[in-house]
Amino acid sequence: MRDINSLDSVRAMHWLDDGLELLDQRKLPGEVCYLRLSTAGEVARAITDMVVRGAPAIGITAAYGVALAAREAYAQAAVHWREAVQPALEQLAQARPTAVNLRWALSRMRALFADIDGDPTPALLAEAAAIQREDLAANRRMGELGASIIGPGARVLTHCNTGSLATGGFGTALGVIRTAYAKGRIAKVYATETRPWLQGARLTAWELAQDGIPVSLLADSAAAYLMQRAAIDWVIVGADRIAANGAVANKIGTYALALAAQAHDVRFMVVGPSSTVDMGTPSGDEIQIEQRPPSEVLTFNGIPLAAQGADAWNPVFDITPSQLVDVIVTERGLVHQPGAEGVARLLRPPGSPSKKRPRSGAAQSCDEEEADAPLDGTQSS
Amino acid sequence: MRDINSLDSVRAMHWLDDGLELLDQRKLPGEVCYLRLSTAGEVARAITDMVVRGAPAIGITAAYGVALAAREAYAQAAVHWREAVQPALEQLAQARPTAVNLRWALSRMRALFADIDGDPTPALLAEAAAIQREDLAANRRMGELGASIIGPGARVLTHCNTGSLATGGFGTALGVIRTAYAKGRIAKVYATETRPWLQGARLTAWELAQDGIPVSLLADSAAAYLMQRAAIDWVIVGADRIAANGAVANKIGTYALALAAQAHDVRFMVVGPSSTVDMGTPSGDEIQIEQRPPSEVLTFNGIPLAAQGADAWNPVFDITPSQLVDVIVTERGLVHQPGAEGVARLLRPPGSPSKKRPRSGAAQSCDEEEADAPLDGTQSS
Repeated sequence: MRDINSLDSVRAMHWLDDGLELLDQRKLPGEVCYLRLSTAGEVARAITDMVVRGAPAIGITAAYGVALAAREAYAQAAVHWREAVQPALEQLAQARPTAVNLRWALSRMRALFADIDGDPTPALLAEAAAIQREDLAANRRMGELGASIIGPGARVLTHCNTGSLATGGFGTALGVIRTAYAKGRIAKVYATETRPWLQGARLTAWELAQDGIPVSLLADSAAAYLMQRAAIDWVIVGADRIAANGAVANKIGTYALALAAQAHDVRFMVVGPSSTVDMGTPSGDEIQIEQRPPSEVLTFNGIPLAAQGADAWNPVFDITPSQLVDVIVTERGLVHQPGAEGVARLLRPPGSPSKKRPRSGAAQSCDEEEADAPLDGTQSS
Repeated sequence: MRDINSLDSVRAMHWLDDGLELLDQRKLPGEVCYLRLSTAGEVARAITDMVVRGAPAIGITAAYGVALAAREAYAQAAVHWREAVQPALEQLAQARPTAVNLRWALSRMRALFADIDGDPTPALLAEAAAIQREDLAANRRMGELGASIIGPGARVLTHCNTGSLATGGFGTALGVIRTAYAKGRIAKVYATETRPWLQGARLTAWELAQDGIPVSLLADSAAAYLMQRAAIDWVIVGADRIAANGAVANKIGTYALALAAQAHDVRFMVVGPSSTVDMGTPSGDEIQIEQRPPSEVLTFNGIPLAAQGADAWNPVFDITPSQLVDVIVTERGLVHQPGAEGVARLLRPPGSPSKKRPRSGAAQSCDEEEADAPLDGTQSS
């Protein structure tokens, strides 16, 4: 048993004096250096260039970006700042296309605009800080909920980086692993290296090393063979967007892991705050999958990996249908065998009458005890 | 349509004057340089260190290694060379554990020992050259057989490197792709980068560039998503060993591709000479899977990829059960829906009476027209 508070020592972003500091994740694990940003344009570029990545972290960073945008707009246009700020908000919205948390955070920040008198900076900075604080609290809650269904001696496999670096702190899938580890339930942590950007090798291994949690890396393509050898109990991943029907957009390779998990009766857990659920996206078909430059596959640190003349197909995310997911963990509760009904029930406001209708059976159920519990986290509406 | 003879311009190994030249595949695609080896010990080390890799190429290289070993033994021990050569043969046999072609080539070379008078070098060199020549011919034949079942406009995905660099020339899976391309049947070639050693990015893309065949690379983990998008008709891979029950040991990641292919009704073709079939290995469970150093995953060209303190699990091969394979292509013919019976029928000598018994039905069949055709290739007995 470890003190849970001894884990999670890293922050991807923090507000310092009058600017946003971002840990430059492109340089990890070789260099730990921070970039200081003071304009919304710099924030949008940092998101596009992956100084910061991870759906919740992108949302929080963009929220601080809105505060910076409003500060610039107020300096230029005074009471007309609400119009002057629009191009910067648009630029932030376009910085990455797939993670819905980015749009969610921008909506939440925009919702404050009408009530602000005078300089909008203090109120918007306070809201961005609240989003970060709530995200951290939601992650702690998801850690408890996810760990509660992991049995002792579990061997877990995670993909990409879903830790403190990807969130406001603690992490989503990695938060569950941290919590289960602190409770003594984890026998072994495997992490895929996560090509092409190597989030697993560079970031997850680094975070876990800070916490003193041992980890074995493997090539993404080796995970199916590890499952064939009956060495994995749970695959635990994050989410960049969860559609209304329970389909999960997440780091490229998630779908391949889900297929392998199904073939070997390995349980498959998706962990994401309710801000990741997008009821406006009916299914995975409507989720725009970002394509990034071929150079991410063809080179490493500027060194060519591949022969001259080769092209690359580099989608950053893929879509895992809900049928391959055993449970979605949010700060509002668990959804077992998720589908449209379970996802909808999760997001329904507490006390809503339709929540009380009978369950549709074992094929699709929301753990209502958990869903009814007091919320630490954010609301997605 | 392309002239098939305009394709395949590379050789992994050739005998020159009194030594073996190996193209150093560790340096590709950045440098094209040859190592000159004059002892069996150097050959064994080159195989272990992956100067040369690919099951058939390892077998051919080891055959030349036997000739070098016998030359040294004859110089030291004259007529007692057959005893003196044993330690070197043992060293060659241990150079890599998984590919059965290595053991097969050593057996074939050893079978000549009894009939040799005087200096064994000329006869053994001639045999090694014959193995290489026959492998090339078998690959050309497999190319024709495999291409014959690929329809026009095919979009194919291959894994690792199975081309000239992995064989005596032309290639196994890549030989099928070359032939089908020359016949105008291929609309698109995708190649996985093949972590951790990047055989796809470094070697397959380089070979195809020499031939002017366009290729798109992708992260191994992206292949399942490509299949979900209905962009692939065939997965075409090689084999390091095929067990008697049709299970296929091949480059790590093959099994994950086979699971994804099954989920999407993508056809799955395994291409390997009959020397890859090991009737002495009943099933995949008996195949020793080589583990290579964690550094292959944790570093690139000596640069750390992963955080300090992370370990890595680095199996080089995995096992694909025959149920996931649609067809095995050898120079002796095709085995559709392979299983123990189809594999056994393939290796039965021509004219053997049991070949004439009725087929067991569509679930497991050997294309006997093809299996009866004159053999260009090698025999595995």
